[in-house]
Amino acid sequence: MKKWTWLYLLLIGAYTIYALNFFYSKGSAGQRVDEIGLSGSLEEKYVMVTFQSGIDYWKSVLKGFEDAAELLNVSVEYRGSAQYDVREQMTVLEQVIAKKPAGIALTVMNPKALTPSIDKAVDAGIPVVLFDSGAPLSKAYSLLATDNYSAGVTAARTMASLIGERGDVGVVTLPNQLNHQERTNGFKDTISSEFPNMRLVAVKDGKGDRIVSRDAATKIMKQFPSVKGIFNTDAVGGVGVADAVRLEQKQSEVKVIGFDTDKVTLDMVREGAISATLAQGAWNMGYWSLQFLFHLHHGLISPDSGQTADASPLPVNVDTGITVVTKDNVANYYLK
Amino acid sequence: MKKWTWLYLLLIGAYTIYALNFFYSKGSAGQRVDEIGLSGSLEEKYVMVTFQSGIDYWKSVLKGFEDAAELLNVSVEYRGSAQYDVREQMTVLEQVIAKKPAGIALTVMNPKALTPSIDKAVDAGIPVVLFDSGAPLSKAYSLLATDNYSAGVTAARTMASLIGERGDVGVVTLPNQLNHQERTNGFKDTISSEFPNMRLVAVKDGKGDRIVSRDAATKIMKQFPSVKGIFNTDAVGGVGVADAVRLEQKQSEVKVIGFDTDKVTLDMVREGAISATLAQGAWNMGYWSLQFLFHLHHGLISPDSGQTADASPLPVNVDTGITVVTKDNVANYYLK
Repeated sequence: MKKWTWLYLLLIGAYTIYALNFFYSKGSAGQRVDEIGLSGSLEEKYVMVTFQSGIDYWKSVLKGFEDAAELLNVSVEYRGSAQYDVREQMTVLEQVIAKKPAGIALTVMNPKALTPSIDKAVDAGIPVVLFDSGAPLSKAYSLLATDNYSAGVTAARTMASLIGERGDVGVVTLPNQLNHQERTNGFKDTISSEFPNMRLVAVKDGKGDRIVSRDAATKIMKQFPSVKGIFNTDAVGGVGVADAVRLEQKQSEVKVIGFDTDKVTLDMVREGAISATLAQGAWNMGYWSLQFLFHLHHGLISPDSGQTADASPLPVNVDTGITVVTKDNVANYYLK
Repeated sequence: MKKWTWLYLLLIGAYTIYALNFFYSKGSAGQRVDEIGLSGSLEEKYVMVTFQSGIDYWKSVLKGFEDAAELLNVSVEYRGSAQYDVREQMTVLEQVIAKKPAGIALTVMNPKALTPSIDKAVDAGIPVVLFDSGAPLSKAYSLLATDNYSAGVTAARTMASLIGERGDVGVVTLPNQLNHQERTNGFKDTISSEFPNMRLVAVKDGKGDRIVSRDAATKIMKQFPSVKGIFNTDAVGGVGVADAVRLEQKQSEVKVIGFDTDKVTLDMVREGAISATLAQGAWNMGYWSLQFLFHLHHGLISPDSGQTADASPLPVNVDTGITVVTKDNVANYYLK
């Protein structure tokens, strides 16, 4: 009889554990949000889609996307065109849409080419948010990106503090691209409104190329020998400008501000060839893209916006901000 | 012996339930985020602080704040100055800071007066985000608000579709307040860049007052009898403009666009005296303010931004968007 008693106890105990375990785990494994806290299901897959999918910059965005997914207990996938090729990106996006994921975070290489696919996804009930570069006329719910004008403002203030708020400065940029025009305008406007003893003497085309940007910077220094600083609005060109300053042996006279945090730029910041570079809020773009998609998928959105054509169920524009990277904090910006 | 067996079974079963219950509930009641999903503790209190705390507009913001708190399993408190009185708001804010809450979401009546208190809170380790109106030079982490220029763009496009993209239009506004200047500029720029057959003929001061705005609108209609539409950039004035159109018996000739969704405006939209009004993303301001504060309190922020002076641990600016409210969807906007 005693043997049987223990057996009963064991069986009933095991069953109780099994039953409670099932009961408690149901909340977080179900399709809907957990009773307590925000949590999804691992079967919920959110896809991040880029172009030139191998570049470093996207890795920081993807890290934010993955960090949010881990906290919310959902799955992610990373896709993108290998090349800077809009037809390839369209093909990838169409393949992703066909799988009906829980949501898509997309960076747009070309708004005109990709808007039809974005709208098709939204019409099919797949939430889409855009990051880094947008498609203003598409049905995507939100754009999470750098406010480029503000980035230019920050560059101007940083330059001012580097050169003691006094002297001539130049810009090397891509004058035909909207985001670079905005960076240049923010720089220009801030110099003229906040720093009466500074003057912007030249804006030159560096074509986003290291050699072309180097030559543009050299021309600025030859034409304006008094120049105290050059702001380059893109990553690759910034390295070229630093090359030029080195070649002219003007490292102590001309300060260089670059953009983004690719490895070559960071190395030059560490060595002092570039005085400062501007880090975009890449992690935040990825993190809040996933949060927004999760909220759309679960219907956790503004209750007022359900029935209108111009509805804003989510914030429509998110400026993820800029951080100034100098020798002091450059170590934080190398990819781990 | 049989009786004892059942007693044993009962006791062991009860203990197992107790133990498992304790084990599972620990995650969500602890100070840190739950193992699965985002969840806080009810002891964590987040405070929303306004001025003129009784007005309807804040109720929608508070609803978003509360909805987020419920999902994240944390507590909220609502505080504010009863009057439009910056000293009273400062006193309230100081009282809130003294209680060391988990975070503060604040709308700023006067940036200059409130910035020292905001900075004091942040320096004391209390996260602060701002909503609706900001304090650009303060240490607050983020501003969640309407992009007023974009709101003006939306108003212009709405007006164009109301009057068939053709005819003279006017604006009644508060020309000395920055947010109203931005709304007017967005309206003006969009008319001139997108609608060649429309013309902005008058911009008048309504002082945010129903009578003054009524008189301003009457003057516009007398001076420009061909006027087809008037955009009023604030809530109270919009009602006055609609009064003027009624008094002049021009309801079928002059379209009125108002701002915000207080009850009088909504009633006029329902009756057709106001053709459209612009709803701000108040719920989103509240909802994402709480989310941001929760992320700051729990350290769930951009890992790159920890050690820099200009750090952006969170998105710095969030445009919560605008929704166009017309007869078709006005029913959604009455406070429940």
